[in-house]
Amino acid sequence: MAKDSVKKVNSKAESVTTTGFGTNPSSYGGRFINKDGSANVIKRGLTFFERISWYHTMLTMPGWKFLGIIVSFYASINFVFASLYYAIGVENLDGIGSIESKWIQFGKAYFFSAQTFTTVGYGHISPNGIATSALAATEALTGLLSFAIATGLFYGRFSKPQAFVIFSHNALISPYKDGRGLMMRMASPKNTNLMDAEARVTLGMVIKDEHGNPVNKFYQLPLEMSYINSLSLSWTLVHPITEESPLYGFTAEDFANMEGEVIVAVKAFDDLFSTTVAISTSYTFDEIVYGAKFEMMYAENNDQTKTILELDKINTFKRVEI
Amino acid sequence: MAKDSVKKVNSKAESVTTTGFGTNPSSYGGRFINKDGSANVIKRGLTFFERISWYHTMLTMPGWKFLGIIVSFYASINFVFASLYYAIGVENLDGIGSIESKWIQFGKAYFFSAQTFTTVGYGHISPNGIATSALAATEALTGLLSFAIATGLFYGRFSKPQAFVIFSHNALISPYKDGRGLMMRMASPKNTNLMDAEARVTLGMVIKDEHGNPVNKFYQLPLEMSYINSLSLSWTLVHPITEESPLYGFTAEDFANMEGEVIVAVKAFDDLFSTTVAISTSYTFDEIVYGAKFEMMYAENNDQTKTILELDKINTFKRVEI
Amino acid sequence: MAKDSVKKVNSKAESVTTTGFGTNPSSYGGRFINKDGSANVIKRGLTFFERISWYHTMLTMPGWKFLGIIVSFYASINFVFASLYYAIGVENLDGIGSIESKWIQFGKAYFFSAQTFTTVGYGHISPNGIATSALAATEALTGLLSFAIATGLFYGRFSKPQAFVIFSHNALISPYKDGRGLMMRMASPKNTNLMDAEARVTLGMVIKDEHGNPVNKFYQLPLEMSYINSLSLSWTLVHPITEESPLYGFTAEDFANMEGEVIVAVKAFDDLFSTTVAISTSYTFDEIVYGAKFEMMYAENNDQTKTILELDKINTFKRVEI
Amino acid sequence: MAKDSVKKVNSKAESVTTTGFGTNPSSYGGRFINKDGSANVIKRGLTFFERISWYHTMLTMPGWKFLGIIVSFYASINFVFASLYYAIGVENLDGIGSIESKWIQFGKAYFFSAQTFTTVGYGHISPNGIATSALAATEALTGLLSFAIATGLFYGRFSKPQAFVIFSHNALISPYKDGRGLMMRMASPKNTNLMDAEARVTLGMVIKDEHGNPVNKFYQLPLEMSYINSLSLSWTLVHPITEESPLYGFTAEDFANMEGEVIVAVKAFDDLFSTTVAISTSYTFDEIVYGAKFEMMYAENNDQTKTILELDKINTFKRVEI
Repeated sequence: MAKDSVKKVNSKAESVTTTGFGTNPSSYGGRFINKDGSANVIKRGLTFFERISWYHTMLTMPGWKFLGIIVSFYASINFVFASLYYAIGVENLDGIGSIESKWIQFGKAYFFSAQTFTTVGYGHISPNGIATSALAATEALTGLLSFAIATGLFYGRFSKPQAFVIFSHNALISPYKDGRGLMMRMASPKNTNLMDAEARVTLGMVIKDEHGNPVNKFYQLPLEMSYINSLSLSWTLVHPITEESPLYGFTAEDFANMEGEVIVAVKAFDDLFSTTVAISTSYTFDEIVYGAKFEMMYAENNDQTKTILELDKINTFKRVEI
Repeated sequence: MAKDSVKKVNSKAESVTTTGFGTNPSSYGGRFINKDGSANVIKRGLTFFERISWYHTMLTMPGWKFLGIIVSFYASINFVFASLYYAIGVENLDGIGSIESKWIQFGKAYFFSAQTFTTVGYGHISPNGIATSALAATEALTGLLSFAIATGLFYGRFSKPQAFVIFSHNALISPYKDGRGLMMRMASPKNTNLMDAEARVTLGMVIKDEHGNPVNKFYQLPLEMSYINSLSLSWTLVHPITEESPLYGFTAEDFANMEGEVIVAVKAFDDLFSTTVAISTSYTFDEIVYGAKFEMMYAENNDQTKTILELDKINTFKRVEI
Repeated sequence: MAKDSVKKVNSKAESVTTTGFGTNPSSYGGRFINKDGSANVIKRGLTFFERISWYHTMLTMPGWKFLGIIVSFYASINFVFASLYYAIGVENLDGIGSIESKWIQFGKAYFFSAQTFTTVGYGHISPNGIATSALAATEALTGLLSFAIATGLFYGRFSKPQAFVIFSHNALISPYKDGRGLMMRMASPKNTNLMDAEARVTLGMVIKDEHGNPVNKFYQLPLEMSYINSLSLSWTLVHPITEESPLYGFTAEDFANMEGEVIVAVKAFDDLFSTTVAISTSYTFDEIVYGAKFEMMYAENNDQTKTILELDKINTFKRVEI
Repeated sequence: MAKDSVKKVNSKAESVTTTGFGTNPSSYGGRFINKDGSANVIKRGLTFFERISWYHTMLTMPGWKFLGIIVSFYASINFVFASLYYAIGVENLDGIGSIESKWIQFGKAYFFSAQTFTTVGYGHISPNGIATSALAATEALTGLLSFAIATGLFYGRFSKPQAFVIFSHNALISPYKDGRGLMMRMASPKNTNLMDAEARVTLGMVIKDEHGNPVNKFYQLPLEMSYINSLSLSWTLVHPITEESPLYGFTAEDFANMEGEVIVAVKAFDDLFSTTVAISTSYTFDEIVYGAKFEMMYAENNDQTKTILELDKINTFKRVEI
């Protein structure tokens, strides 16, 4: 890690060891957790296919990429089958004239392949002879199985349970009661219903141990409220910076000069997926704004019958003296 | 909120802050939770597609609307493809006569499109030439992928775990032991089996704080039984209005004049879906009947071998003096 | 209930009220829980479709019935479409000769319908004219959507998480330590792996209350072991009949003459379905054998490398004096 | 079991009875749990189909076997239908010449079957007559339902939640603090994210009871850390061999001469499957290396922005004196 390690830490704060991260900072590069909640880890030492869950990969890739793969696969497999039909001989495909040019013959074999793969089978071109007929039968099976897989992937993609939660880009050090609090805000942007939401906030810092060696230390940051019944509106996570907090006494300079990271993990029951969903994010000290307050992000509507939640205000805050 | 805020509340009652709702009543319009259990919140500030989970939307819309969307999509996409075939030239569709009227030609192109999209491919009309053949190959792919998506949506619609639970429309203030109780009734109307059912009842009221400012206060209402092994029959939730209850001392007039809401959340394990399902509802003070008692809704059958649960009696009560 | 209600019950035993069953025996007919774990309840007062989860019904019906429904649906819908094609006029179906008999014409329309519904579309018969073409396009859509639904139902049927657990048909009163125990045995017959299995045993009896009125009383029966890590072999549930047990002092005559029921509910984590599965059963007093012992149902194999579980011995016991 | 049973065991160690395994070693052959986590049990006494969950079997078999079954099924069912078409008479299949040889006629019937089963339906061969038409309609239905099932199986196969976790092949007795510890290492090789991982380690040994009879004894081995927030890197399970440990005082010879097994069960929440996944393994005493230490398996990358996890080092250890 590039910056200095933390030289002071509240001695009353108790560290935790159950984060799954090790204690030796020299083994770590960069942040622990990426902004999107994934671990900042590269896996090596196995082959690509041993390391990859291709199903997960197909499920989480962007839609245009997923469609691109399907279209490319379709174009390629038809090319392969067309070449095979052509190699066997187009005279076995009734409906392709023997006096046509080779390009047109190949083109017709290509579209015959597409008609077989998709099981359209118009029949103006049809297979003849054992080899071509068997190949066509194989292609039709291949086509149907491919679409069986595509059906599964489409369903997997849109039925994959996920936590529709957005976080404020910044964490704030805000006035809180008589002191200060570390605040992060979240909301659910979609028409789903998150119940029994629980949050866990962990602080990771590199500090010097008693021998002056840098070690990774992790602290569970207690929250004013770590559970709510329902995430219908916004939820501001508040860690009160009490005398027991590892952040007690930290100044704006400390956040600017030290290396540290606040990891937020949220679990909730989504009553449309009917399952528990989880999401994480992290705030490096660079992303913590010292002396600021979130602005209210919901209000009554005009006829006073509904409450309006303004999702674009999730990271809106104003500077305050603290 | 239109009505007066609650001026008195049992000082022995302890409020809770973990409901996920804020404390400032002026930010709220109308009830907190709708009768169907959804939050009475409008989301703004993101585009429609950022705010919508289209999969959830397709899953929860009524069946006729869902079928309507499928049929419209089918009619429209065939129109688009028919127009493209027509634009390329119907002379590339063998089987469409060149001397036919333009309308008939377009109509035949339209039905050719339908036969390709569904992969029926009778073949009495068949594509010719690169452009038309490629378009037909594309349409067949589009068709199969569309049906892959439709398959997923159908499956998603009927396999979506949901709590088949009906609630009494009204909550009652009934005689209970030596005093009174707030009672709400529920039952499972379907041939599913709900196990380990848990209920949580929360009271939300607008009351004046020590400075006379209205604030939202929430109270967890303890239940005589908040858990049952199996929801085979009806379950009457009973909140005993003891001296510790925030409703202690409330009269019929108080319920009529004040603004408040009782929120019920139920979770259970459905052993056919093999998952935990959740459902909520709420009762505004308007929906609370002061002085009434639910009537029994199940009885032995004639040959004494079965118990009959009469679901239409879920909200049947008789007035009583209390 | 036909038999006498229980007249004596161990006064040290504490009853529970959270079973979900009511206390008034005159409202109940027959046993509480059927042998297959379903509640012995009939639901009334709503229409059939309000009471039925058709998806659950399709999932839990026997395979031959499910296939029968599919085949009947296929035969019927083809009949409907064939009638429509016939009504519009078979002259719009190219390939059906106008001089053929009406039965043959209808038969050909019927098979044309089948070829369209399944999207085979050989093309030796093909639609002509707007009405017939539109009907064929509609039928192809209907066909594909029907198979989309069938695909979902097939998948739903075989992916439905269920607890593959068999119970002994009888419960036994066996010697246990210095006294007696109520014993029931279970095992998992399939090649799945049930972890973290938990059992709950509840006794339901009709007893006389202090005023001599019969009331339903339920007792949680504590087990020697109510949890095991893994249900790899057989698991014998043992309720020690101690002085605190409601069954303390019961004789063979008591079980024969009284009315009562032991309800067993088991939950476990199935690591192939990756979900919690639940199953129940019940033993009426008639099904309790007084003075018997289960025989061992597993043993080492010949070459001492595996353990053999003999599933057909699940209910094998021998009589013993107690 | 072949080897001697354990003659000594730490008398301070407390055994557990909730493993699901019995106490009589003579009923057991070989190890309790296989290396892949399955129980070392053979089930008998029911028919094959009563013992098998064919869905689980199809889901867990290797891919090549699964594809082999599909291809064989396709080849066979076409053979069956071709035979039926042939039996009815190929003169009912328009497009098959009556003067062709019987082999060619059968071959054409075979490919006609394939075209019907996959609903390609080119139409150069088409059914005629009631029997053949009805058979073709039946085959098309059979084909579509088969592909419906295949679609479900494909989806089931790749969407099956599973714990992507690899374990070190060996467990080690390593130096730990001032004494020794039993250590096993695990990591997640794939691009999934395991949260809230919990491990439970159980020791099973055959020991002599007070009467000198061998009995199976199980001990829960307490871990230094039995829970971590996130399995992003490697996780070394450490059982400190304290004075309370059943392994206290064990020497290299004891592990070599005695019969015992360490069973590891891990549960975690996979946030891509959004469900809890479970995995087990076991280490017989033969697989425990006395006096060795795992080598670090992760390090900072070159530009210090990421941490690299080297999965091939999962079982890398060096010998140490202890």
